[in-house]
Amino acid sequence: MKIFQVEGTLVATARITQLENNRLLVLREKSGSRSVAVDPIGCKKGDWVIAVGSSAAKDAAGSSKYPSDLTIVGIIDYWDADEPGEVAT
Amino acid sequence: MKIFQVEGTLVATARITQLENNRLLVLREKSGSRSVAVDPIGCKKGDWVIAVGSSAAKDAAGSSKYPSDLTIVGIIDYWDADEPGEVAT
Amino acid sequence: MKIFQVEGTLVATARITQLENNRLLVLREKSGSRSVAVDPIGCKKGDWVIAVGSSAAKDAAGSSKYPSDLTIVGIIDYWDADEPGEVAT
Amino acid sequence: MKIFQVEGTLVATARITQLENNRLLVLREKSGSRSVAVDPIGCKKGDWVIAVGSSAAKDAAGSSKYPSDLTIVGIIDYWDADEPGEVAT
Amino acid sequence: MKIFQVEGTLVATARITQLENNRLLVLREKSGSRSVAVDPIGCKKGDWVIAVGSSAAKDAAGSSKYPSDLTIVGIIDYWDADEPGEVAT
Repeated sequence: MKIFQVEGTLVATARITQLENNRLLVLREKSGSRSVAVDPIGCKKGDWVIAVGSSAAKDAAGSSKYPSDLTIVGIIDYWDADEPGEVAT
Repeated sequence: MKIFQVEGTLVATARITQLENNRLLVLREKSGSRSVAVDPIGCKKGDWVIAVGSSAAKDAAGSSKYPSDLTIVGIIDYWDADEPGEVAT
Repeated sequence: MKIFQVEGTLVATARITQLENNRLLVLREKSGSRSVAVDPIGCKKGDWVIAVGSSAAKDAAGSSKYPSDLTIVGIIDYWDADEPGEVAT
Repeated sequence: MKIFQVEGTLVATARITQLENNRLLVLREKSGSRSVAVDPIGCKKGDWVIAVGSSAAKDAAGSSKYPSDLTIVGIIDYWDADEPGEVAT
Repeated sequence: MKIFQVEGTLVATARITQLENNRLLVLREKSGSRSVAVDPIGCKKGDWVIAVGSSAAKDAAGSSKYPSDLTIVGIIDYWDADEPGEVAT
């Protein structure tokens, strides 16, 4: 899994039907690169989250057929890194 | 999923039969790197889209046997980023 | 899928039996990095091709058990990029 | 598989139910980039480990439905590299 | 598949049971980055090999449940690149 910060909501009206109405969020890695993830939890802008990729993203989104390659699986409370963290408790 | 801009159509007459006649588009990431995706939606040159990779690209293209590792799943209307977006409403 | 140019043939006599006798080609991305792909089409050195990765590479090579993570799926005729292309018609 | 050093524990109370109560560790690659992995072994901070990604991470975590894309599979005793290793016996 | 040179053996006594006693090798890409692979062939230090990733690494290691994301599938005899190769016949 990778660590991301939630940047905001992405709106895509024209979409394949398998995506259904699930909420899509724009996530940003520390490096600045952006990805789009399915959010089954209900995150807010600014939250630090972990998201799963690969084929596990499908199951995490609720079904082994769901077309996701990145799904949020948890909101980070904190982690104990060597450097004082970007994520406070 | 990743965010791409549609650059144009790619023509490949000699292809494996499993690809069928689906339209292939050249997509460009913000970093400039190009990928080729299956387009089940009908995008136009210049559209900003989200595309799914990994094994989910197969289902998104219509079948768990379809040989795609990148399939467009939606056309972006807009997203609310911190910086004024490249994608206007 | 990604765009590659065929650089040449790779010979590997000692191989796992599941690879069978399929032809392996060395491909080069525009960035210069090399990969090795299964070629079910019959490409020539210098051809520009698209190759599929992820689990789709197995089906593209002919079987859901075939041990490939990169399989050529088409020879590019041309694409209409913004910049005058590296690939002519 | 990739080589990582365990940096610490990550706490995420709000999580999808499929993650269950498994321990999540922050891992760091030699390049400095961080990932989050499931730990079925019981590693300590500072341990050098190997972790598996892709769809194999699901089975390594105990079930083909478990939503992991990175799972620790072993603690490294040593390896015989050309350069005197970062990992001592 | 990617091209690697075998750097040496990796010893990890504490490991998940699914890994069994298979030999793990440290491989190095031309760029210098290291990975760990399962070796079903029997490679020697210094050998140039091709290894398969993604979900195909599981089947290549002998079972669709085996927890590998990188498995050696062949020892390279030579390839005919444009530049005089690093791998001689």
